[in-house]
Amino acid sequence: MSTHDVVRDYVERLEARDWPAFAALLDPDVVYEMPQTRERVRGRERYLQFNQEYPGEWHLEVLRVVAEDLHGVCWLRWRVGEEAGDAVVLLTVDDDGLVTEVVDFWPESYEPPPGRDHLVERW
Amino acid sequence: MSTHDVVRDYVERLEARDWPAFAALLDPDVVYEMPQTRERVRGRERYLQFNQEYPGEWHLEVLRVVAEDLHGVCWLRWRVGEEAGDAVVLLTVDDDGLVTEVVDFWPESYEPPPGRDHLVERW
Repeated sequence: MSTHDVVRDYVERLEARDWPAFAALLDPDVVYEMPQTRERVRGRERYLQFNQEYPGEWHLEVLRVVAEDLHGVCWLRWRVGEEAGDAVVLLTVDDDGLVTEVVDFWPESYEPPPGRDHLVERW
Repeated sequence: MSTHDVVRDYVERLEARDWPAFAALLDPDVVYEMPQTRERVRGRERYLQFNQEYPGEWHLEVLRVVAEDLHGVCWLRWRVGEEAGDAVVLLTVDDDGLVTEVVDFWPESYEPPPGRDHLVERW
């Protein structure tokens, strides 16, 4: 399976809560990191549990997949009830296509700083 | 120039404040979007000005480039004085290698929610 397909499947199997299929993508020693909170989860079992226990009726939709060699990125849209936002996940796979490293970003909304309204429009 | 090289040069020319070289990477109708603030900047001249006027002694360091066909992603580290963090920029180029679309994420630090300390370590 190409890295591109691994990245897409990673998100789609999460969204489907298909835990055996999701686990099949992961190296036993996968490391998951969230730089925003400086949190790290080590190992497939623990990372599976982390996802299974994640609270809320969350949904994930793939917006874009970009992959090159053993690195892949997914830009995705998350939704929990009325709330929604973007996320970016960076994956590293090994030569067998198993995910060895996940770096997750969940950028939150904020109000723009002053001083650039002459250049920008809002949506 | 490959999409991979465009992505790397995009960040390195920004860091160098080499505005003519940076502008040479951009399509005249480039669109820059920041989903976190729902801000959009249209056009090369305006986007150049946006970067030139961006306040602070900011520095950017490329951590990873991933590119596939006409899409590229850069995970980078920013630094302003004592402050530092991660950013992710998603680029789209046209067949001539000119950047037509930029989507920028600046994920901010936050404290982890309770309930997952049994699975995570901090750094």
